[in-house]
Order: sequence, then C-alpha cells, then structure tokens
Amino acid sequence: MTAEHRSDRVTVLAGGVGGARLAHGLDLAGADLTVVVNVADDVELHGLWISPDLDTVTYTLAGLADEERGWGVVGETYAALDAMGRLGEDTWFTLGDRDLATHVVRTARLRAGASLSDVTAQLTAALGVRARVLPVTDDRVATLVDTPAGRLGFQEYFVGRRHADDVLGLVYDGIDAARPAPGVLDAVTDADVVVVAPSNPFLSVEPVLGVAGVREALAGTTARRVAVSPIVGGRAIKGPAAQILTTLGHEVSALGVARLYVGLVDVMVIDDHDAHLADAVRALGMDVVVTDTVMGGAPGRERLAREVLRAGGASRG
Amino acid sequence: MTAEHRSDRVTVLAGGVGGARLAHGLDLAGADLTVVVNVADDVELHGLWISPDLDTVTYTLAGLADEERGWGVVGETYAALDAMGRLGEDTWFTLGDRDLATHVVRTARLRAGASLSDVTAQLTAALGVRARVLPVTDDRVATLVDTPAGRLGFQEYFVGRRHADDVLGLVYDGIDAARPAPGVLDAVTDADVVVVAPSNPFLSVEPVLGVAGVREALAGTTARRVAVSPIVGGRAIKGPAAQILTTLGHEVSALGVARLYVGLVDVMVIDDHDAHLADAVRALGMDVVVTDTVMGGAPGRERLAREVLRAGGASRG
Repeated sequence: MTAEHRSDRVTVLAGGVGGARLAHGLDLAGADLTVVVNVADDVELHGLWISPDLDTVTYTLAGLADEERGWGVVGETYAALDAMGRLGEDTWFTLGDRDLATHVVRTARLRAGASLSDVTAQLTAALGVRARVLPVTDDRVATLVDTPAGRLGFQEYFVGRRHADDVLGLVYDGIDAARPAPGVLDAVTDADVVVVAPSNPFLSVEPVLGVAGVREALAGTTARRVAVSPIVGGRAIKGPAAQILTTLGHEVSALGVARLYVGLVDVMVIDDHDAHLADAVRALGMDVVVTDTVMGGAPGRERLAREVLRAGGASRG
Repeated sequence: MTAEHRSDRVTVLAGGVGGARLAHGLDLAGADLTVVVNVADDVELHGLWISPDLDTVTYTLAGLADEERGWGVVGETYAALDAMGRLGEDTWFTLGDRDLATHVVRTARLRAGASLSDVTAQLTAALGVRARVLPVTDDRVATLVDTPAGRLGFQEYFVGRRHADDVLGLVYDGIDAARPAPGVLDAVTDADVVVVAPSNPFLSVEPVLGVAGVREALAGTTARRVAVSPIVGGRAIKGPAAQILTTLGHEVSALGVARLYVGLVDVMVIDDHDAHLADAVRALGMDVVVTDTVMGGAPGRERLAREVLRAGGASRG
C-alpha cells in the first residue's frame, strides 16, 4: 500500500474532555486511532472503580457523551444516586444511572481479575467504538493536589471543591511503580502522528508522560508530534489549567504550554487569538500552526483534527 | 409495666413477600417487632451482593415496596440495567436503579468490613424502618436446587428459570458453618410471640431454622409460637411452595405445612378455605385459628397481624 491508501496511524495522549473531543474529530477524519488516556484522576467511590477520563473518551467516541455539560452520558437520570443519598452515602460526586452501570461493570470485571486495559477494550467494543482506547497504565496512579488547605485527593479537589483551591504542587502517587499498559509504548513509537491533546498539562498530560517509558517513547519516536494548546487568549478553554499554570510559576499562554513540551513536540497548534505568540513558539524549536482551536460539535472537531493531521504530515517523507 | 401497657415483643421468621407483608401488618399493629430474615437466596451478580429477602422486608416496612409486582421498589426505573446490558452483562436478574443503589451501598460496606447485620441496621435506619431487621446469619448460606436439569443456584432456579423445574432436593450450602447473627437467638428466646411467616417452608423457613441454634431456640422458647400457612385451598399464595411440597412428597395443604412444624409451633393460622383441616391440624397437637389469611394492602395485613397477635396471646399468663 502507498501512503495515500492507508489511514494515518495516530496516537493521542489525552485527559478528559479536550482529548476526547479531538480524538472524536480524528476518528471522524478517518484516522487509525489509538487514544492513550490518563488514569490518575481515577477514584474508588461507593466501592466502585471510576475512571473519569477513560469514560469521557469512551462516551465521546461512542456518541453517548453529554456534550453540553462536558461529562457523563446524554439523557442521563439520577435515580440510583438519589437512593444512595437516602441510604446515607455522600453524593458530592454525581453519578448518573447509565454512568453507574459502567462503574459497576468495570469494578466487577476488575475484581474478577481483568486488567483495566481488558475492561476498557470490552467496554469500548460493546459501545461500538472503533478506536483503541488504552489506559496509560493498568497500575494505580493517583494525582494528589497540594493546596493551602492541605493535600487533597484529585476528585476532592476537582469535583468536591470545584477546583477553587490554589494548586501549590502535584504528586502522582504510584507513578514510579506504574508500568505502561500493553500497547501504549508501541502506540507512541509506531505511530505516524502523536498528538498531545489540548488537555491540562499538569493534571492530564504529565501523569501520562510520567509512566515508565512514555516520555522516552515520545522523545524518541519517529512520529511527527503535534500538541494543541489548551490555553487560548490566556485562558483555559475548560477547567483549572490557567490557575495551575499561574500558581506553579508558568506563563498562562500557548507559549507557556509550548515551553513545557520542548523536546517532546515538533508542532504546536495555537489558536488564532494567539497568532502573536507564533514566533516565540518557533524560537523554542517547534513548527507552529495557527488556526481556530476551539472545537464545538462534530464539524469543529473534525476540522481541527484535519489541521492536526496536516501538521503531522507536513514533514513526512 | 403491666402487660396492657407495653407492646408485644414479636419476632417473625421470614422469607420475602409473605414475611414482609405480615411483618408490615405487625408493625402497623404496634408490635415491638424483630424480623429474622432468610439469606440463603442471596446472590452475587455484577460484583454486587444482593439480599432479596432482606430487601423485600426492608422496602415493605419502609413503604417503598412495589406491592403490585411483589418485589423491588415502587416507581422503579431501569436505566442502569439497560446500560449494563449494552455493556455485555447478562441482565436476566432485573435490577432497578433504586434497588441497584441498595446493592452498591451494601456491597461497598461489606467490602469495607461491615457485617451484613451492620449494613442492614444502617439501611433500615436510613429508610425509617422502626422494626429490627436481622439477617439470620452474617455468614454465607446458599440454597442450591436439585432439579431434573441438574443442580441450580437459587436465583437461577427462581428468577432465571422462573421456578419451572421440579425440585427434587434442596441443599443449604454453608449452613452447617453458619452462626446466627447477633440478636437472632435472643429475639427468638425472649419474644412474647414468635411468628413463622407464611413463607415457603423449604426455600425460606428451613434455611432460617437450619442456622445453628435457631431451631433449638424456637423449640425451647417460652414465647407463644404461631405459624401462618402459606398454602390456601391447596395452592400457594405466591411462588413455588405447592410444587415443592409435591415433589418432595408432602401434602399440598395447610395440614401438610403444619406437619413440617410439629414441635416448633403452638398455633397454626389457616385460611377460611381450609377450615375443614382444622381438626387434623389440632390432632398434631397445635391450636388452630381459622381466618382470612390472604393479605392485600395495609388493612388486610394489619387485620391478619392482629389475629396472629391474638393467637399468640391466647395462652399467656
């Protein structure tokens, strides 16, 4: 087969919503897609193993995501959560009935001995997801957030306290012992294009890169490496990325993000609003693509995905 | 206090629906009520610990039971079950969203080290149940059903195959090692009245009596012991009691049931339709009360409960 006749092998390193939406666009654009997903947000609640980023990616690729809200399943109901509250459980972490089913099934299969990779493959297959969705590791990694109020579990920080606390530091508990899940390193090494999603650099991307071998695989891959900035016009499209960049001493801009990826990324995709930063990013040794990076629904995702694929193909051959 | 000024201490030995409804009637009648509940129907499905009889008793006493259907929670929805089916789980065991919450919470607390008694006390308290609801044991007992199709797990027999198989024998797996839960033996020994509910003698009552010390406590208690026949006019009010009596070689009648309880029961409550059996039951050494034993809603339950309390008080003092 010639290059014209096969799909690009594209691997996305992703957190939740931003990664999920760009992955969706790449899927719509026909990429041969692998999504390597952060699991450091995972949490056990009510005895159930919850993997929010894996679920966001899966639901989005399956067309089940609640796009308006940005998390969970569309048309969701909350009868079980209501009943759990009545039974005396803390219900600060909102679990819809359909989402709960995912957690029940995942937990049962994990307890029966399956790996998180196995279960993720089963769930994505059951929901008709074409892409490979891989947890970055089958081992347990937990982001802990140091704040003026003390060290918080990730979901306590993110959902329980609505990421209002200043982030003074981050600990990825367990990451030193975490081995990459089957297929993860190959997906980075053997891809035509590796995409660092417009996800939070500290909460999503770093706990992916920190798993043994992933950063090295990204540094060493022959794939063209493209990052999309999650910061547009000095603000995060979603979530606390801007605050965290600030409190950790980084510039809150696409340039600040680009600096974090020096040596790991060949092309930085930045928003039209940030065109004035293009030269400074180029000075870091990266190519720059300036485009509209704010994805809305499916058309916007596919458009950005095609830009990313073009950026990824620019230097090939 | 004189006898007139305190509630009767009443302990019910119960399975599911029949026991739950009579317990409800006794609660409405103002009894100081303890319900000792069969757990040999319990099953682990989807990694969740399900205790159908405990839940039926609890939901009924809490006013949450789906009375029309005879199991589960009124106004129930099935979003999670639907999603679980989509994820490839077997869904022959119908779990509503609210019911699922009970199983999730129970399972989480059991895994965290609580006993089934502890969890049951927490759940009944949370739902405003006044009566003490006690699993007969915190240990695991599982009814296995020998049929022409082989040995079946209880829920497979009962729900999965709709109790259509002939029952050739029953095994209460684990019962020899099962210890009575805290309070169970005292509840039988110290009661004023012990009621054997109109539950299935083989599927519900026997795996209660078979737990170490329970049969002996019932045989030796100074309480007045009253059983209500689950067979009316040669038919079971609900479930497979009639078929099981037949295939195990017993007479399908209130008399056949009474014979199973000789030495354990002082008064047999039989239905008006079975008045002609009263003398034969008396010949077994029991008193007989003939009344309408078919409970409908709350008024019918309370009426039967008052008959039972009268029967239980008849010989006192």
